Amino acid sequence: MVEKEKEKMTLVVFSGDLDRALSAFMIATTGASMGMEVTMFFTFWGLNIIKKNEGGIKSQGLMRKMLNLINRGGSRRLNLSKFHMFGLGTWMMKRLMKEINMPSIDELITMANQMGVKLVACTNTCGVMGLAEDALRSEVESMAGAAYFLEEARDSKVTLFI
Amino acid sequence: MVEKEKEKMTLVVFSGDLDRALSAFMIATTGASMGMEVTMFFTFWGLNIIKKNEGGIKSQGLMRKMLNLINRGGSRRLNLSKFHMFGLGTWMMKRLMKEINMPSIDELITMANQMGVKLVACTNTCGVMGLAEDALRSEVESMAGAAYFLEEARDSKVTLFI
Amino acid sequence: MVEKEKEKMTLVVFSGDLDRALSAFMIATTGASMGMEVTMFFTFWGLNIIKKNEGGIKSQGLMRKMLNLINRGGSRRLNLSKFHMFGLGTWMMKRLMKEINMPSIDELITMANQMGVKLVACTNTCGVMGLAEDALRSEVESMAGAAYFLEEARDSKVTLFI
Repeated sequence: MVEKEKEKMTLVVFSGDLDRALSAFMIATTGASMGMEVTMFFTFWGLNIIKKNEGGIKSQGLMRKMLNLINRGGSRRLNLSKFHMFGLGTWMMKRLMKEINMPSIDELITMANQMGVKLVACTNTCGVMGLAEDALRSEVESMAGAAYFLEEARDSKVTLFI
Repeated sequence: MVEKEKEKMTLVVFSGDLDRALSAFMIATTGASMGMEVTMFFTFWGLNIIKKNEGGIKSQGLMRKMLNLINRGGSRRLNLSKFHMFGLGTWMMKRLMKEINMPSIDELITMANQMGVKLVACTNTCGVMGLAEDALRSEVESMAGAAYFLEEARDSKVTLFI
Repeated sequence: MVEKEKEKMTLVVFSGDLDRALSAFMIATTGASMGMEVTMFFTFWGLNIIKKNEGGIKSQGLMRKMLNLINRGGSRRLNLSKFHMFGLGTWMMKRLMKEINMPSIDELITMANQMGVKLVACTNTCGVMGLAEDALRSEVESMAGAAYFLEEARDSKVTLFI
């Protein structure tokens, strides 16, 4: 008896905007619930989504320290790409989502993890930004390069750049 | 005699920027003209493209009323992602497009509809923003969730997140 | 003996932000190094990446002249999508990349070209912006329309909209 191979989906998460992060995780968890094998590959500002919310980020060199200060990241600090309005718009969006019982970004990350969605951080951009593995949430499985992403993507039924 | 099945294309339209909307509809109508079966799935700010231009949007609750006031939407109110310059840049872009006989966004929506492109609104984000079906243009065929999008996407030759 | 056909990848490069341009070229060159046949289709602001750095752009009509003045483009003038901070953030990012020996955008364009990545400019948006072929870098192979892009995309294992 041959087990049918699972269909794959691969998402590049480039953006660190709250709205795009929500979209990415909604697609990822929906895919997982439909039996797909999902990999999310976080790069550039998308790394902000999977940085730890607690503690500071230790990085080498003055410029990287500065970058991690102004670009602190963490799922609770993400902003909308539009109508952030010094936090008011982002706060409103979170309230509206709660009202209709939509999961928050943190709940979505936990759900994704429990459903077996693989979270992978881009080695290269982690290097540029001075992020070591201890700066990232425990749900992140590994760091890998663009070649890893393409190996997954070329076997995938669906690949999106978000 | 077996009819050859049509190749599919599925576009997630997340952005409500005029330039990205133009890109999405140019790709959609070109695909349809090549015999592809095209579905456009509008979510988040992309919903602005398919809101009615006329009339106000009735929504429940103070926050949703406010959101639909500042985020009015409608194809005639879309802005460029860059160089909007208080309307000047967007106005210029529309003029330049007209000069070389490129269709406007409204003409593209009509063309897409006549060519059988399916326009679908994301149920979840409509819920967050308090949009009922009567807030959307008549060209929109239905509302559906992320699972519907993925069912289409995994059968598609081309899937893009715009 | 039949030569195995190469797997294809097609990237639409819509954005002219430095970070997205870097991502696009890193994916393109990685794909080429894995033996994929890669096409990059530049449209809208993405055209800025493949404009010549030297010389002015000659275009017809006052509005197109103005547009090419404020939207000069060229790989050396690209800005980050976030934290540009009047050039400081973009300058810092370039320094950080150099420190870990990541290639610059110009080096990536040269590498892509040497590896056989096809750079194609969108005819339509070149028309809107008044760009003739002599405004584009020598690495650009040709101009083509959306139908060309879709012909490539529907044969591709991976297609991204960046």
